[in-house]
Amino acid sequence: MGGVTVRLDDLPLRDDLRGMTPYGAPQAPLPVALNVNENTHPVPSDVADDILDAVARALRDVNRYPDREFTTLREAFAQYLGHGLGVEQIWAANGSNEVLQHILQAFGGPGRTAMGFAPTYSMYPILTRATGARWIAGEREHDFALSADSAAAQVRAHRPDIVFLCAPNNPTGTPLRLDVIEAVYDATDGVVIVDEAYEEFAPRDEPSAVTLLPGRPRLVVSRTMSKAFAFAGARVGYLAADPAFVDALRLVRLPYHLSALTQAAATAALGHADTMLAMVDEIVAQRDRISATVSALGYTAHESWTNFVLFGGVDDPAATWKALYDRGVLIRDVGIANHLRVSAGTEDETTAFLDALASVGSRS
Amino acid sequence: MGGVTVRLDDLPLRDDLRGMTPYGAPQAPLPVALNVNENTHPVPSDVADDILDAVARALRDVNRYPDREFTTLREAFAQYLGHGLGVEQIWAANGSNEVLQHILQAFGGPGRTAMGFAPTYSMYPILTRATGARWIAGEREHDFALSADSAAAQVRAHRPDIVFLCAPNNPTGTPLRLDVIEAVYDATDGVVIVDEAYEEFAPRDEPSAVTLLPGRPRLVVSRTMSKAFAFAGARVGYLAADPAFVDALRLVRLPYHLSALTQAAATAALGHADTMLAMVDEIVAQRDRISATVSALGYTAHESWTNFVLFGGVDDPAATWKALYDRGVLIRDVGIANHLRVSAGTEDETTAFLDALASVGSRS
Repeated sequence: MGGVTVRLDDLPLRDDLRGMTPYGAPQAPLPVALNVNENTHPVPSDVADDILDAVARALRDVNRYPDREFTTLREAFAQYLGHGLGVEQIWAANGSNEVLQHILQAFGGPGRTAMGFAPTYSMYPILTRATGARWIAGEREHDFALSADSAAAQVRAHRPDIVFLCAPNNPTGTPLRLDVIEAVYDATDGVVIVDEAYEEFAPRDEPSAVTLLPGRPRLVVSRTMSKAFAFAGARVGYLAADPAFVDALRLVRLPYHLSALTQAAATAALGHADTMLAMVDEIVAQRDRISATVSALGYTAHESWTNFVLFGGVDDPAATWKALYDRGVLIRDVGIANHLRVSAGTEDETTAFLDALASVGSRS
Repeated sequence: MGGVTVRLDDLPLRDDLRGMTPYGAPQAPLPVALNVNENTHPVPSDVADDILDAVARALRDVNRYPDREFTTLREAFAQYLGHGLGVEQIWAANGSNEVLQHILQAFGGPGRTAMGFAPTYSMYPILTRATGARWIAGEREHDFALSADSAAAQVRAHRPDIVFLCAPNNPTGTPLRLDVIEAVYDATDGVVIVDEAYEEFAPRDEPSAVTLLPGRPRLVVSRTMSKAFAFAGARVGYLAADPAFVDALRLVRLPYHLSALTQAAATAALGHADTMLAMVDEIVAQRDRISATVSALGYTAHESWTNFVLFGGVDDPAATWKALYDRGVLIRDVGIANHLRVSAGTEDETTAFLDALASVGSRS
């Protein structure tokens, strides 16, 4: 069929997409990949066996469209989240990015605005603009913290239709307390999204924003199976909200958006929550080891309630990133001056990273 | 957490969504379900075994994000489609609805228009409006046919940014010849989408629109695995186009939109294309049996190159639909006056439908 016949600019592309490049972190096959906050522990074999059995059952009628309401999976999420949540309060999609896209399609779009507090998850502005809404970048305080007073004042000043609160925050790892969520909710008539993608890595006695849902119908708490459940490859995000909020998402989802295989695999994995959360404890231990060791090496480790550590005091992030890359360790330059971000891996992977960083010696 | 605290209208929903209801055919557990043009043959067990092996391999590193470029799957699609297509000309997503959504996100949106020829696939206007574009309903001629002259004239009159050509057409089954596509392409500077969801059920010697791709960078041919490959539950749609066109879709897709399990399952199924296409021949035989039998019963069967038959001459479609429902047979009232649509099932399912229809006797 021959090679390229035209360039992208020759096609009748939307004007706002011209000159853009596709979003996505580099996918490089390095021995130690700690760049995209994956759970580097494979799914345990007994869990994988159960998942495979569930997929085998789903394949028996994969010729039929899947349950458009994915009721069994929503029941499993409701049970996992607890706090008396009902199945009618749960929604899910192909990754939490699609969950957020559904919210933006229902409540954002042309003529509306969405706001977050930078630096925060880089997909928020991308998802916002892709639905035609305008992005407003709020600010954080010292050490990337966000206080209730500051967040509420910024929301009152900008009056966004949607507020993103990443709790704990990516890419900084920063905790976000419930009083911030309460203050922001009270400061707006819009939708408040609390993105708890990394919630399972926070201290176990810290409450989730799910506890704030009663009486707050504009509040939504999103989660993902990519991190704690080691399920990044399966693409499963979910949320909890008021039943009416969930009904709004039904208006914008594509029919049958969640495949029967996804529904089966995710439901089976949720049946092993205890096993998966035990893995989380190991990761948290490695995260804390990273924080302690990079500090000992002379860097500044920011407080993290996630499965990664953002550390500052890097004179030349690009050079340090490349030096680690050359040693077979892939981490992430998230674009914050003098900072790099690393995911907590297995004990061996974490050791490999820490040894490589020590050998780089850029703090000498 | 209590029951419903608010109604949908109390939430800050987008104005254009107010009063809408979710799209989707009724999902009723009837013994004979011939309402949504599924392939009612389960995936053969040897094919299912291969798929399961592939999923088992994918589960080994499901903790990692999937290949964002799904290269192995794109290679399998290129090989299946043939005609010298290269992997750089292939795109895929979670069902052909998402494939079409990606096209509309890249080339449609606010201030733009998309056009199709009614009656046609009911998701086209929904997808168009969901991206903020305006829908233009063109017209068909006698017996739902669409000629090159008529289609091109309507396109020249309305100057849409995107044209949908459903070939063969759903819900009517009507063939669409390549000269229509050529004429429409020449009549517009916009994107021309040929939706070949049912292409495998057309006569084998009829050429696909894929043969028209060389030299037509604004032409795109979409397909699905839901029908011929009995994979509706797995949600896999795909397309072929110019490499630059595919690059445009990379700007709007969510990162990692196709799960590792989906990629593995679809690639494995494509390795059994011969087995799956043999099943297609059985379905085509049942389709032709439906056409002949409903005609003998006094109805009008419209020519179909798909896995379903639209038949007219139904005095009271709602009553006939209900009478069939009461006999355990689910078909579809697609909203065309005096018509009903039925999918070709297995021989037994088709017999059940035809016997039930004969017993209804509304043509007496």
